[in-house]
Amino acid sequence: MHKVIFDTDPGVDDAMALLFLHNHPQIDLIGITSVFGNAAIETTTRNALYLKQQWDIAAPVARGLGETLDPARPHVGWPTGIHGDDGLGNIGAPATVDLPCDPRPAHRFIIDTVRENPGEVTIVAVGRMTNLARALRDDPDIAVLVKEIVIMGGAFDMRGNITPAAEANIHGDPEAADAVMTAPWPVVVVGLDVTEQTVMTRKRLADIVAAGGARAKLLSDISQFYIDFYEQHVEDGMVVHDSCACVYVVAPELFTLRSGAIRVVCGGIADGQTIQKADDHLFPPNAWDNLPSQNVCVGIDAEGVLDLISKTLGLNPAA
Amino acid sequence: MHKVIFDTDPGVDDAMALLFLHNHPQIDLIGITSVFGNAAIETTTRNALYLKQQWDIAAPVARGLGETLDPARPHVGWPTGIHGDDGLGNIGAPATVDLPCDPRPAHRFIIDTVRENPGEVTIVAVGRMTNLARALRDDPDIAVLVKEIVIMGGAFDMRGNITPAAEANIHGDPEAADAVMTAPWPVVVVGLDVTEQTVMTRKRLADIVAAGGARAKLLSDISQFYIDFYEQHVEDGMVVHDSCACVYVVAPELFTLRSGAIRVVCGGIADGQTIQKADDHLFPPNAWDNLPSQNVCVGIDAEGVLDLISKTLGLNPAA
Repeated sequence: MHKVIFDTDPGVDDAMALLFLHNHPQIDLIGITSVFGNAAIETTTRNALYLKQQWDIAAPVARGLGETLDPARPHVGWPTGIHGDDGLGNIGAPATVDLPCDPRPAHRFIIDTVRENPGEVTIVAVGRMTNLARALRDDPDIAVLVKEIVIMGGAFDMRGNITPAAEANIHGDPEAADAVMTAPWPVVVVGLDVTEQTVMTRKRLADIVAAGGARAKLLSDISQFYIDFYEQHVEDGMVVHDSCACVYVVAPELFTLRSGAIRVVCGGIADGQTIQKADDHLFPPNAWDNLPSQNVCVGIDAEGVLDLISKTLGLNPAA
Repeated sequence: MHKVIFDTDPGVDDAMALLFLHNHPQIDLIGITSVFGNAAIETTTRNALYLKQQWDIAAPVARGLGETLDPARPHVGWPTGIHGDDGLGNIGAPATVDLPCDPRPAHRFIIDTVRENPGEVTIVAVGRMTNLARALRDDPDIAVLVKEIVIMGGAFDMRGNITPAAEANIHGDPEAADAVMTAPWPVVVVGLDVTEQTVMTRKRLADIVAAGGARAKLLSDISQFYIDFYEQHVEDGMVVHDSCACVYVVAPELFTLRSGAIRVVCGGIADGQTIQKADDHLFPPNAWDNLPSQNVCVGIDAEGVLDLISKTLGLNPAA
């Protein structure tokens, strides 16, 4: 069993990833921490509670940060054209959900949970890196107590998606991401290099609904707005960014990794760009030297990933 | 016939490119402008004169700039481990060459030559972009009078070579390169994405010497030190970066292009990185908007390029 904290900004593809984590028999979802990104922190926290309620998820929700690590950064607008005004594809999520949050802020929840489960906690982070960076700042020693950090974010050997240089999650808080990538915990980055190859067609999603009942039906309803957005980028269906990171936890053999130190550009036209120095290539002295090697996903068995997502989302149809 | 000015910092692979331009029957080499990069400006100018003398090249040599466009930039050391202390693989080039330079500085030579041949001049630039940027600064109107700029430099969908982010020619003067890439002249960038696939084996070079006589023999002597350096990067032989740009002029069909605005990162850990916004991808407003679309080489028929280089270097064996 993998003990997982899901750091998330639901978010449409976040919702799919959450149901995957909830359903998968080898994952013990021990916490959900919200963060801003796909929408404001009030919205993403409400959405996390709403999905917890609808899907009967036991894990607590801890509310995370709603501003960048560097408070001087200008605000980047919410991507309402992708995730809807409510962050869940405009399904009409209730204004409030009658469930309590964990009393602690997300970064404190992360610190406590890691310390209570030394060497056992995997954190799957699919929003901005703000909560993780704040946890590191408040308690740097947790880095060596975490089992693994799996990040959906970044773009390495290709363009970004929010700028020609940067992917949105990392671009949303570059200073936080640079702190997370360079800390002495094992990081695996599942970026656009592999997620953009992983497209769930409408047909596949319909098959999931047929197998997965009411839970999958809600997920499908949430996803339609996002699928419409993706029509300008892919032929049919939705890129399942965040679910790819969750699949990595249970099926790493579906991914090809490249090892090397990772830095995030902070400022300038490449703001938020992720750059890896691969271990097997020599360079003169540079800003990547003496930092821990992390893993970047450079290859994916997209069909294998989609099959596992389909199978997992189709479990537990009763709800 | 293509009227070509060769802006170069010889440099071992520059020497090969120069012999290609000199030998190719469809190229009229009308000027050689030196620039710093592979060595100091005194050395690269001397080397240009030396190769002009040894190979009996009619084109004048105009001495170029020896400092970055922004004089505040710290000096980057010469790559003597790649090109030798003399910039020509430590063959023992003479301290001075008894040939005059054109009386004008390189950027003035470029301006005058472009104005004398409106719409007809292709500039192949394989060192730092300093001369071109200075020519643009002194006479911006030349941009619309140049036929094409073909640059060896940059790294787009892959790591750099002097840092994980940047290729050496562009890294050597990022402000100059950004000015050149964003000016309203047609630019084709032949970067590491394609040049690193183009490796001339020792065997192929030996065959060129057998066909090409004394001129090719000198080229081979110059190249041995560089080939030894490349043993840490490629199995056998030398990456012929600069010659790829020359081949593009006469055989563009051997390359696959991608169109879009190009910017160069100035400052920070990605200093000198080249980033293109492909025309066929949508982004929110960004620093690439409203700039001219330029072409980046994203594919190459490496065997076809090498065959054309072999054939061309083997011409005119008498010397």
